[in-house]
Amino acid sequence: MSISEKTSPLFPKVTLIGLGLMGSSLCHAMRRKGIAGHISGHDHNPETREKAFELKLVDDVFENPTNAIKEADLIILCVPVGGCGEIVEDIKYAMKPGAILTDVGSVKSQVITDILPHLPEDVHFIPGHPVAGTEYSGPEAGFAELYDGRWCILTPLENTDPGAIAKLTTFWQSCGSSVEIMSAEHHDKVLAITSHIPHLIAYNIVGTASELEHDTLSEVIKFSAGGFRDFTRIASSDPVMWRDIFLNNKEAVLEMLGRFSEDLSALQRAIRRNDGQQLFDHFARTRAIRQSIIEAGQETDVPDFGRPHKSE
Amino acid sequence: MSISEKTSPLFPKVTLIGLGLMGSSLCHAMRRKGIAGHISGHDHNPETREKAFELKLVDDVFENPTNAIKEADLIILCVPVGGCGEIVEDIKYAMKPGAILTDVGSVKSQVITDILPHLPEDVHFIPGHPVAGTEYSGPEAGFAELYDGRWCILTPLENTDPGAIAKLTTFWQSCGSSVEIMSAEHHDKVLAITSHIPHLIAYNIVGTASELEHDTLSEVIKFSAGGFRDFTRIASSDPVMWRDIFLNNKEAVLEMLGRFSEDLSALQRAIRRNDGQQLFDHFARTRAIRQSIIEAGQETDVPDFGRPHKSE
Repeated sequence: MSISEKTSPLFPKVTLIGLGLMGSSLCHAMRRKGIAGHISGHDHNPETREKAFELKLVDDVFENPTNAIKEADLIILCVPVGGCGEIVEDIKYAMKPGAILTDVGSVKSQVITDILPHLPEDVHFIPGHPVAGTEYSGPEAGFAELYDGRWCILTPLENTDPGAIAKLTTFWQSCGSSVEIMSAEHHDKVLAITSHIPHLIAYNIVGTASELEHDTLSEVIKFSAGGFRDFTRIASSDPVMWRDIFLNNKEAVLEMLGRFSEDLSALQRAIRRNDGQQLFDHFARTRAIRQSIIEAGQETDVPDFGRPHKSE
Repeated sequence: MSISEKTSPLFPKVTLIGLGLMGSSLCHAMRRKGIAGHISGHDHNPETREKAFELKLVDDVFENPTNAIKEADLIILCVPVGGCGEIVEDIKYAMKPGAILTDVGSVKSQVITDILPHLPEDVHFIPGHPVAGTEYSGPEAGFAELYDGRWCILTPLENTDPGAIAKLTTFWQSCGSSVEIMSAEHHDKVLAITSHIPHLIAYNIVGTASELEHDTLSEVIKFSAGGFRDFTRIASSDPVMWRDIFLNNKEAVLEMLGRFSEDLSALQRAIRRNDGQQLFDHFARTRAIRQSIIEAGQETDVPDFGRPHKSE
């Protein structure tokens, strides 16, 4: 009896809509701890479906999302945020009463606006965002440890069933994450500065570099170790996902971008006017924030991320 | 006889002016391969001098740079670029005829302008820039492998003795680096985009974040894993070094910053006008550059730099 209790999964059936980096990593994380009795999947891309099945990430996989979510106790949307509303419209009549519906998108307010009109009354919708990722995409990029030691932010609407929130919290904790609850509006503002603007800037500078004359560009690649290569990592993230993030968190992104540009103009002016003191004061101030992040356990303090410095 | 030949050092005496990350790493790298018969050091900071001696990075250390460089065959300036001219003015009468003078600064044209008026005719001045570093500073931050597998750019003036260039090339190769020769002007342009602008932008966004209200700032730190923390690493580099770089590579930095800002305005406009196609096209284009950098051997292709994802 105690063995059967121990091994009974948190959710008898979990369905993943979208089997890229986030979805496939969830498959690995669920299998690691026996969180799901059965994992079903859907992806719009036939090759991704085949690969996910071949890798045994899912127990079964469906071309039609409606078939994938049948009898599912937990449905997780792992698609670019612009696609969430449409998916829920597609599956709305097939969701099991009492099921929990969540997502992993980096924007929350717009996703709520898109999903709410299609949401059946008897489904618990709890928007979510695990703050984790790598620069790689696709079902082969997933790994069980992606969510370990990371934050997952849930932004439940008012009147959401506390039992459903507690169960989804346990789910993410079992996947290795710590859970934080906040409003969708607040989430979108914080993520605009921690994630969206850094990605936009990285995409931008790599774009600027890519338009230099050919000879200079090859040297930019050759000597990228001076700082540029860190930006290229960020700027190699999935383009569809990021297009959707910027279009769906427009207000917060444009607001933070305004502040960024004002501050950059001030630094630019200090350089032009040889104001070394202003530059020094700014550069000294930003150093302390790094230490706070390491202390908060969100970063390794190994120099240069422990990149190999040895010759081949 | 053959043993003595094998072990005879490339330079009987090397002097390092500045014993921070770059200088102390050179000490380790030289000791690893027996490149220097004797290593002498100077730093303007008494604590750094003491620490460098205590760590046996140097064989002797002097408060006065003039005493440190006596009889030195190779003198390496490892100080912020703004200090190079003054140092050479200080030591100009004490340099040994035939000695090689070089530096490790990230700006070359201005350093040449600053040093040339003080340069004795019988000293071989070869400006240099090893494209390597970490976010840490000081004599304890140094390690032998810092220069392994990295590029070192030399920007010799016309009429520099080819023998001296060859000898300095051998020196950097023995420290683990590959050597590239180019003009100072070209160097400053390439480094503006690969290193100086990325640092300025990173300092800027971390500064923008640091001015958010207190509650939001603590959440920015907490959820920094979304991209922001990579910028904080870059923005925790030495403030004096970076102040000097921007003031001394003003022209190239302002030129590249102009291009960056124009491109950022175009992306901002695309977001405001919901132009998803333009965003997608831009984001897809920048992805390829990452691959080129990995292929060029300048980066690891481990996801997320192989940062630990495991829970504590």
